Amino acid sequence: MTRQEIYEQIQAKKSYLCVGLDTDLNRIPKHLHAYDDPIFEFNKAIIDATHDLCVSYKPNTAFYEAMGAKGWEALQKTSDYITENFPGNHLIIADAKRGDIGNTSRLYARALFEELEADAVTVAPYMGIDSVQPFLEFDDKWVILLALTSNKGSADFQFFHNGKMPLFEHVMRTSMTWGTPDNLMFVVGATHPEKIQEIRAIAPDHFLLVPGVGAQGGDLAGISKYGLNEYCGLLISSSRGIIYAGEGEDFAEKAREAALELQQEMAIYLKEYCG
Amino acid sequence: MTRQEIYEQIQAKKSYLCVGLDTDLNRIPKHLHAYDDPIFEFNKAIIDATHDLCVSYKPNTAFYEAMGAKGWEALQKTSDYITENFPGNHLIIADAKRGDIGNTSRLYARALFEELEADAVTVAPYMGIDSVQPFLEFDDKWVILLALTSNKGSADFQFFHNGKMPLFEHVMRTSMTWGTPDNLMFVVGATHPEKIQEIRAIAPDHFLLVPGVGAQGGDLAGISKYGLNEYCGLLISSSRGIIYAGEGEDFAEKAREAALELQQEMAIYLKEYCG
Repeated sequence: MTRQEIYEQIQAKKSYLCVGLDTDLNRIPKHLHAYDDPIFEFNKAIIDATHDLCVSYKPNTAFYEAMGAKGWEALQKTSDYITENFPGNHLIIADAKRGDIGNTSRLYARALFEELEADAVTVAPYMGIDSVQPFLEFDDKWVILLALTSNKGSADFQFFHNGKMPLFEHVMRTSMTWGTPDNLMFVVGATHPEKIQEIRAIAPDHFLLVPGVGAQGGDLAGISKYGLNEYCGLLISSSRGIIYAGEGEDFAEKAREAALELQQEMAIYLKEYCG
Repeated sequence: MTRQEIYEQIQAKKSYLCVGLDTDLNRIPKHLHAYDDPIFEFNKAIIDATHDLCVSYKPNTAFYEAMGAKGWEALQKTSDYITENFPGNHLIIADAKRGDIGNTSRLYARALFEELEADAVTVAPYMGIDSVQPFLEFDDKWVILLALTSNKGSADFQFFHNGKMPLFEHVMRTSMTWGTPDNLMFVVGATHPEKIQEIRAIAPDHFLLVPGVGAQGGDLAGISKYGLNEYCGLLISSSRGIIYAGEGEDFAEKAREAALELQQEMAIYLKEYCG
């Protein structure tokens, strides 16, 4: 999926929402347990209810791997379901946070891009260029590199400073010589809108994947104000706030309501900052 | 597996060898393709041929994940085979290089420690404490944190310097406040023996997992001289140098020869530096 194609989806749907499919057997409605593959049934219902409101789906692979072979199957079926039913409509992000030596990253790239047919994969930068490059070698596929994550522990190493810049900025500036705005995005947590401004200055053209915004739309205004660029440049991800918005048989409707609320707010910001 | 139990294995076998099970369908002998599960057949033969010469097996999970559900099954069978046939004899390291926010790392910990029954997992440090801690909460299980990796790209970020120390040292010193020599090891590439000396000064008591030593025994002497401590403190890993030492039907014998060569050298260093 090219940058232009993503932008077209954003324009058509007036949305830069990414729905995180962090599907946990312990949190899905009880009645789904009657199905052969409850995880896939849940995902299918969520996708049916939200596909026109979002431009991306992001399964965190850990949730599927935790269930072994059966989990991988559910993940594959989910990916297939999206591409078969809504072809070209969503960027599928395998949130796998991979990063290994070249040969091994190449294996991951094949597994995630070719088998799973994901469009993008999140990658951890610690091991440097040879852990990232194999993912950049695929046409119309994306690396989404961890830069500044939203979790508490992000401060432990990502702000490690060489006197000129913190590590996360060094990661961004270095990796921007490996990839381009057409195959490289960055993960930037939604914690501080003012950081988004700083990061947008470092990478004016790259898409940013911003997790950590809940259904309540916490920092959405600030992040959008400082993060949106000419081609939108933002994918704002919400997982639990959407997929677990309801707990009963109407969970999909509730998910749609939560997604709709975010999408409607996004439509306003797109008009205001990305006209 | 406790530190004491690892040390007892090292003493009994006069070896601190870890065999990397980076098993690739394209590289295993042709005749194995006749089996239902060629990967498992290969691993089984390698394990049978080397179990008394090594104290650890380290499957890189990417090789198995790249084959989808079937791969996970082969990995599970391999882990089961080791623990059922040689109980308590080997530290099983899931070389997965995971690292995600707390909840997700917890899922990985459960999948790798409880389902796969690995004793240790390699973890990437970039996301900080909450990505590491969930793995440290299991009794007698180990985190092996990436510190200084052996690949070319390691220089991109791991030597990023704050004026006092490089990032890899900061990672080590910080994480040593989270874990102890009884549940935390570090990955240190075999590239420079002199780095091992420096790293041993930073972490005198922690085990170091050292990949990058081939069957030819490249830096084994230097790494052992500078890396061995009172309780050995080293696990030296070789993958391709052992498992692909032969290409024909005698591949397991050839693997044994390669492992034996390393083990015999290790026996000398253990006597010399680890009284």
